[in-house]
Amino acid sequence: MVSKNQIKLISSLQQKKYRIAHQLFFAEGVKVIQELLESNFELDHLYTTQNDFEDVLFAKKTLVHETDLKKISALATPNTCLAVFKMPVEKKVKESGLIVALDSIRDPGNLGTILRLCDWFGVEQLVCSKETVDIYNPKVVQATMGSIARVNVSYVDLKEFISETQLPVFGTFMDGLNIYKTSLPQEGIIIMGNEANGISEELEKVIENRLSIPRFGEVQKTESLNVATATAIILSEFRRG
Amino acid sequence: MVSKNQIKLISSLQQKKYRIAHQLFFAEGVKVIQELLESNFELDHLYTTQNDFEDVLFAKKTLVHETDLKKISALATPNTCLAVFKMPVEKKVKESGLIVALDSIRDPGNLGTILRLCDWFGVEQLVCSKETVDIYNPKVVQATMGSIARVNVSYVDLKEFISETQLPVFGTFMDGLNIYKTSLPQEGIIIMGNEANGISEELEKVIENRLSIPRFGEVQKTESLNVATATAIILSEFRRG
Repeated sequence: MVSKNQIKLISSLQQKKYRIAHQLFFAEGVKVIQELLESNFELDHLYTTQNDFEDVLFAKKTLVHETDLKKISALATPNTCLAVFKMPVEKKVKESGLIVALDSIRDPGNLGTILRLCDWFGVEQLVCSKETVDIYNPKVVQATMGSIARVNVSYVDLKEFISETQLPVFGTFMDGLNIYKTSLPQEGIIIMGNEANGISEELEKVIENRLSIPRFGEVQKTESLNVATATAIILSEFRRG
Repeated sequence: MVSKNQIKLISSLQQKKYRIAHQLFFAEGVKVIQELLESNFELDHLYTTQNDFEDVLFAKKTLVHETDLKKISALATPNTCLAVFKMPVEKKVKESGLIVALDSIRDPGNLGTILRLCDWFGVEQLVCSKETVDIYNPKVVQATMGSIARVNVSYVDLKEFISETQLPVFGTFMDGLNIYKTSLPQEGIIIMGNEANGISEELEKVIENRLSIPRFGEVQKTESLNVATATAIILSEFRRG
């Protein structure tokens, strides 16, 4: 059984202000929950329709009916389990190696996919502008597929951060250098811009390295790549050596 | 004004069986509609809340109120316009150059993003297994951002197609050759597998070239890349030369 108060609390966690107020967020699905449990995330409570998660203490686990799970789930088609976790304390930005910085990414799916790419390509630090969608948004948590446990995510004043860093800063623009023909370092900050407007003018001023992903289509009409697929291509180029 | 019959017809086009029955599909938003109009797609009727699309004949255009648009839109937040188009006759598969083949891609967003990538990287032919989501699904049309007008999409029996082709066939697998260290041709078929299960066993047997995208994360836990981001990395590698 899930009590009315629990339903109310968990539903409220779909909104950022309540996640901050309660310092809680939730994840759905065995794979994501398992990954968070194995990492440093502290479980608040687990709701599951199965007799699974044997390592979780009895006191922290409630066996629920599918209809109850539906009441607390953020998914159109609920999974078999949902877990509420304590929000970890934000760690200091690790300013070394390859860093991805996001300038106002609004789509939860894009943020989740980019975090998953960071994890794949060994990027340990993701820096987000304060306008970027919240990493603990349920749709983001879902799209990360557990990568949220392995990449450090920080929300900062991006212009200030870029102005003060000692690392080389990269951004992609229509008039940038061909990324396939440019020698790329193993350390640096790669800035990815907003879905509709790209990198903001204010930030553009402080970017010293302008890159570009060439188009190959005969009819030169495709205006842009989706920000997540562009990030995939750029990280692949930085890492391929 | 939109009549009750028009609302009923357009709503029905969200389902594949009615798109096939009426040989119609719809697109939303100025950018996508403009791209389709400029290509070979034949307009059935345009519904817009603005005095735009001046080139469209008076008889093919209805000025509607926002509340009417909401009734016919497939979007949670409707755009300013929706256009119904005639479904073009499926063209013969163009079996040359670089071809992307999809083995049961189910997510409309993924199919749309992959079509956009084909357009960017000059891939003129996309081949889909019959289990792949329909290209005229409104969510796919939306995600293509107009690329649907420039890439030929065909639905085929994928195993038969692969067995009969003269082109080299490529697929990505965990145990494949490092894609960054393999010489890749400008002609060939690249097979991308289903979101959850990858390339089906049946197809795997007929793939002679096994590639792999190396991971760089220290903790080797990220199990897979999203199929659209994997396609981005692979097409980038094939094209970069």
